[in-house]
Amino acid sequence: MLSLSQINPAIIRAQYAVRGPIALKAEELRNQLNSDLNAKNKLGFDSIINCNIGNPQQLGQKPITFNRQVACITEYPELLDKPEAKALFPSDVIERAKSILKAVGSIGAYSHSKGVPLIRQHVAQFLQKRDGFFSDPESIYLTAGASVGVSNILQLILSSPADGVMIPIPQYPLYTAALALNQARAVEYYLSESDQWAPDITQLEDVFSRHQANGTNIKAMVVISPGNPVGNCLDRSTMEAIIKFCYQHKIVLLADEVYQTNIFDPDQRPFISFKHVLLSMPTPISNNLNLVSFHSISKGQIGECGRRGGFFELVNIAPEVQEQVYKLASVQLCPPLAGQIGVDLQVLPPQVGSPSYELWKEEIDGISNELFNRSRLLAEAFNQLEGISCNSAQGAMYLFPRIRLPQKAYEAAEKAGKPVDEFYCMELLCKTGICIVPGSGFGQEPGTMHFRTTFLSPDVPEFVRRFKKFHIDFMKEYS
Amino acid sequence: MLSLSQINPAIIRAQYAVRGPIALKAEELRNQLNSDLNAKNKLGFDSIINCNIGNPQQLGQKPITFNRQVACITEYPELLDKPEAKALFPSDVIERAKSILKAVGSIGAYSHSKGVPLIRQHVAQFLQKRDGFFSDPESIYLTAGASVGVSNILQLILSSPADGVMIPIPQYPLYTAALALNQARAVEYYLSESDQWAPDITQLEDVFSRHQANGTNIKAMVVISPGNPVGNCLDRSTMEAIIKFCYQHKIVLLADEVYQTNIFDPDQRPFISFKHVLLSMPTPISNNLNLVSFHSISKGQIGECGRRGGFFELVNIAPEVQEQVYKLASVQLCPPLAGQIGVDLQVLPPQVGSPSYELWKEEIDGISNELFNRSRLLAEAFNQLEGISCNSAQGAMYLFPRIRLPQKAYEAAEKAGKPVDEFYCMELLCKTGICIVPGSGFGQEPGTMHFRTTFLSPDVPEFVRRFKKFHIDFMKEYS
Repeated sequence: MLSLSQINPAIIRAQYAVRGPIALKAEELRNQLNSDLNAKNKLGFDSIINCNIGNPQQLGQKPITFNRQVACITEYPELLDKPEAKALFPSDVIERAKSILKAVGSIGAYSHSKGVPLIRQHVAQFLQKRDGFFSDPESIYLTAGASVGVSNILQLILSSPADGVMIPIPQYPLYTAALALNQARAVEYYLSESDQWAPDITQLEDVFSRHQANGTNIKAMVVISPGNPVGNCLDRSTMEAIIKFCYQHKIVLLADEVYQTNIFDPDQRPFISFKHVLLSMPTPISNNLNLVSFHSISKGQIGECGRRGGFFELVNIAPEVQEQVYKLASVQLCPPLAGQIGVDLQVLPPQVGSPSYELWKEEIDGISNELFNRSRLLAEAFNQLEGISCNSAQGAMYLFPRIRLPQKAYEAAEKAGKPVDEFYCMELLCKTGICIVPGSGFGQEPGTMHFRTTFLSPDVPEFVRRFKKFHIDFMKEYS
Repeated sequence: MLSLSQINPAIIRAQYAVRGPIALKAEELRNQLNSDLNAKNKLGFDSIINCNIGNPQQLGQKPITFNRQVACITEYPELLDKPEAKALFPSDVIERAKSILKAVGSIGAYSHSKGVPLIRQHVAQFLQKRDGFFSDPESIYLTAGASVGVSNILQLILSSPADGVMIPIPQYPLYTAALALNQARAVEYYLSESDQWAPDITQLEDVFSRHQANGTNIKAMVVISPGNPVGNCLDRSTMEAIIKFCYQHKIVLLADEVYQTNIFDPDQRPFISFKHVLLSMPTPISNNLNLVSFHSISKGQIGECGRRGGFFELVNIAPEVQEQVYKLASVQLCPPLAGQIGVDLQVLPPQVGSPSYELWKEEIDGISNELFNRSRLLAEAFNQLEGISCNSAQGAMYLFPRIRLPQKAYEAAEKAGKPVDEFYCMELLCKTGICIVPGSGFGQEPGTMHFRTTFLSPDVPEFVRRFKKFHIDFMKEYS
């Protein structure tokens, strides 16, 4: 009885390409491969290579042992009463699990809606150490991943269809989806592909005044650094310029910093947090600009997407507004305890000299190096192909290569009723099993075409082999 | 810079009494008791008794051993490689953990946005067995608790400030909060206190036409059975009448059935699902009425609130609408794996004859009996007090006693700027440490006053001792 015409049009308008039609097709093909022994012959490949989502453990990345050992005990504290426990777990794992259990009671109980107080204290200590400035546990909200935090803050800020939020293009489509769901406007500013995807600061004033003149009430600006989907990492002077811009126009700065430990050239282009840059600036900017910064346990070297953990910190947000943030969190009861514990282990890892430290360090460094190597191998492989150019990643988990396709490919895409990048990605999937996301799902400068791929797949040579053959054939077919 | 006047007014309007001012005060008092050794002398009590939230494990309810053993292994599968594992876990625990791990890969990976396919199959089998009718895993969505499912479905259905949803009064305030956040109207129908809180079916037509005449476009009806906050349980004929009513007016029926195993008189008043009743009715009702039914792992005997797990099933929902539900779920990535696994263990518990069955049965029955006994003891204690009358619970975890307070109490409450029930509950908290929620947070018939208390606190005599003294003193003071 309920028909499309009767439901919320904002949901119909919302798009989320990362799990869109190509991901659905990939699922269909995977089911086919699983259920039909002959499918690999029909399809010409024997597996789906999922490079559409930053989902490290799906692609075989091993969880950090310390984190899982602690989590294991918090699930079943009776383990500690067994004589075997001491042989199974290092002493720092047992101590840590005990201190978490003391703070949460049971992981089966709702916690404080902001998250377990002890864990928020640990987050505050982590932020203080990272940024060199005071952090208040009461301004920290643990969340079920960064996404729900972003959605909540956008819901808080946006109150009219004339409201808008500045977002980078290309962007992570959570932002356009959340804006669509809140019936608000996306105000696009561009990242510059020829400048390693740095945001072009000189355009900001123009973008702002142009949209203001169109009646848009711009309320916030989103910055993703390290960047998704483009893998850039902002330098300090750019960050200062963005802060001044937001301050001047009295808009909230939303800093998506979930990839803060996925950094590939820490000497030349280290991660710097917006909180650090902001609080290092003079008053009245430093004590007035409204900043919300987001972090997650889904990314970094931990990659614990399935736990759903993360947090945001409110900086310079008025107490009466914070009360409303708290109320919104209360209606949602509390973030999952497994995610909260994941945050605790992220912000307070084993310390030098503790029994678990060496293994922890080895695992974290191993994953870092792997990701760096894969990002370089993959970018090189793309750059060797005709019609593809690719910036190397400064951070995050993605490459966003530009593709220049022949005119006939555009014609074929039009015939299929698809943008040419979606056409290209769908062909790639159906011919190779490689699942990536077309650039149009993230936004791109008019006239340019891209795709996003993660570099999480451990078998880079296989990816390159399949991809190269497809691309060369495709270029030939449509030349 | 961001002020209250600039944020989303829908958030400001939303109320959530369960974690409202009284819960905040309770938190403050608890902190005082924890940090100040002398506080218990100043306050006159040494602990907070949290009866404001259905949070069983916070009050010491033990998790089900089988569930936690399985979850423990899924956190740290390497345990199975240790020779000690066989001694630590029964064989069915190990098998189950292995089969879950095979289905999810790692619990640190994002799953399918609807939830792990194997777990949805188990849910479908559970529903088929419960209801006697086919259930399609593709119409089942795992969620982070029932709340997020309810919020998503309301967001889907509601598209205009003139849209309304029928909700029972008293209701669980998630509904009024979600309606406020969606800027839609709450259309109230009353539960009848003199009829054991059964909904008065005869009023429904009148309520509907009255609100329709006011320009409200009623799109759905919420039924909570077993009921929160009143503990009623619907009988079959009432359910049939509700289904006919919804069918006739072409509105969606939202069945909140999260307390379906918290049943206290299964012979006289068993739980019957709306799906079963609907599909037992003749066509065209049975194959046309849009039904969404919600379940959760937070309640029942499991009480795993902190895991954030639950699911809903879509019945008779058009495929193109289901696609939109799926897209909304996709934007939210996936429910926490710990919650999904919790659902799996809920819908497919150990079977008779398996090594874990006896203990599982003993634990489940023990909790059931405890809850039943406490509900009866508490209702009796309330009914012995002047000015209090209380229906006994047919199900769920709450009592909703009516309080008749002296005129002077109303005057004192007015002076304090509070409804008299909130005044009463705040006094109770400050004098005894007992934290309950005033009836005004749930809605109540005009001129009546109530409060909601859980019966989860294991120390009923202590609750009764503190409560009784307070109530007698209060009645004396304001008489």
